[in-house]
Amino acid sequence: MNTAYTNPREVRNLIRLGKLLRPTCGLAPGYAQANLVILPQALALDFFLFCQRNPKPCPVLEALEAGNYEPVLTAPGADIRVDVPLYRVYKEGELTAEERDITGYWNSDMVSFLLGCSFTFETALMRAGISLRHIDEGKNVSMYVTDIPTVPAGPFAGPLVVTMRPIHMSKVVRSVQITSRFPSVHGAPIHIGNPEKIGIADLSKPDYGDAVEIKDDEVPVFWACGVTPQAVALKSKPPLVITHSPGHMFITDLLDEDLSVS
Amino acid sequence: MNTAYTNPREVRNLIRLGKLLRPTCGLAPGYAQANLVILPQALALDFFLFCQRNPKPCPVLEALEAGNYEPVLTAPGADIRVDVPLYRVYKEGELTAEERDITGYWNSDMVSFLLGCSFTFETALMRAGISLRHIDEGKNVSMYVTDIPTVPAGPFAGPLVVTMRPIHMSKVVRSVQITSRFPSVHGAPIHIGNPEKIGIADLSKPDYGDAVEIKDDEVPVFWACGVTPQAVALKSKPPLVITHSPGHMFITDLLDEDLSVS
Repeated sequence: MNTAYTNPREVRNLIRLGKLLRPTCGLAPGYAQANLVILPQALALDFFLFCQRNPKPCPVLEALEAGNYEPVLTAPGADIRVDVPLYRVYKEGELTAEERDITGYWNSDMVSFLLGCSFTFETALMRAGISLRHIDEGKNVSMYVTDIPTVPAGPFAGPLVVTMRPIHMSKVVRSVQITSRFPSVHGAPIHIGNPEKIGIADLSKPDYGDAVEIKDDEVPVFWACGVTPQAVALKSKPPLVITHSPGHMFITDLLDEDLSVS
Repeated sequence: MNTAYTNPREVRNLIRLGKLLRPTCGLAPGYAQANLVILPQALALDFFLFCQRNPKPCPVLEALEAGNYEPVLTAPGADIRVDVPLYRVYKEGELTAEERDITGYWNSDMVSFLLGCSFTFETALMRAGISLRHIDEGKNVSMYVTDIPTVPAGPFAGPLVVTMRPIHMSKVVRSVQITSRFPSVHGAPIHIGNPEKIGIADLSKPDYGDAVEIKDDEVPVFWACGVTPQAVALKSKPPLVITHSPGHMFITDLLDEDLSVS
């Protein structure tokens, strides 16, 4: 791999220069990637409350003062407006544009949230010899809307969205142990084994992402998903919300291991 | 002890009726008590950012939407305006009143934060046979302003305030282990042993609270203190801030053990 792709600052610089329009999976390995949600200030406090009340789907890695676009704690020198390969712009809850640069939308009223992403714990699982079907199949992870309510905050409410990974029955306990070490990137599973118990009728029909094979000796394991806050934010139909485009994450300077608790 | 003093709802009710004007230490044992900070909405997002960036001194147990006064997650049915035995009211950073009821000050613009309190980990230390000098001496814990900066957020900035407890040298490691289990109530120590290394010149002259004896075979151990966010909030001289009065905490329905991570 090109060494320019291993350093988070260099990767962000290539993205900023428009030379890396691709999903960020595999870039700057070992460094934590983040979901991005940008909201008007009038909604930011309630969105922050929503995240604080639902830390498993909405683990805040860093949030910025209104108008600020440099994440000084997790990626000093970065610019949240140009350092993500692809953004989505939503107006009144509707997708209106995909952009490679959002400086044209920026104003001093905008509040940015960087939320933990499951890439971190997926790396830890794979290092422990637990293979991940969607990666082996070259697909996006399977995501489902459950019937588990989140804890509402102000106008923000809605069901928990989860990812599902089929885990060999001999590795389920180990997968709980490994992901429990990473509470700021979704942490331990929220459910193991019975999709119907959390309102999922058919694993072969995910609400987002792709379906994957589940073998006879595998158990479906469910983790809280960072799509939850985006779905909830859009449901309230705010005048403007900007997020990363799926798979095109913000790359921080934090090591994945910085996010472990033990 | 009167059984009415053991149930958090009954204790809050006695406080609300004006029948329990006293520090809350020892009331509703086993239940978590909280620091209270109430701010105008215009400052609330930045104060929330400050807490998120400084989780050791500012562990948010619950925060409420503007105007809300019922902590539905940590104490459903409670009223933050009348369920604390004694409040302090600050205008432009100056203490202007102590009150037993703040409904007269309340308006729909006010945002309330409940922050974890060290009573929880002190209970755990004592259960493990680690005696606490300030409790044995019937004093308030020793608190010091350090030269360790907090991570600023908006107008909020200032030094970390710490508590100090003398721990027998044979129990220092155990005290780290025990308090590490409680990250949402200040967690592990921030320093062990050398007060001058964190800007404390004289342990016999605390900035807040009382001095206590330190014996030859004891080590001073320092934990982040909930006075930090109050000191920082007042330094920015907001038009109105209301807090609990020292020692007169808000009693939640959370068990101390609910706040442990292992």
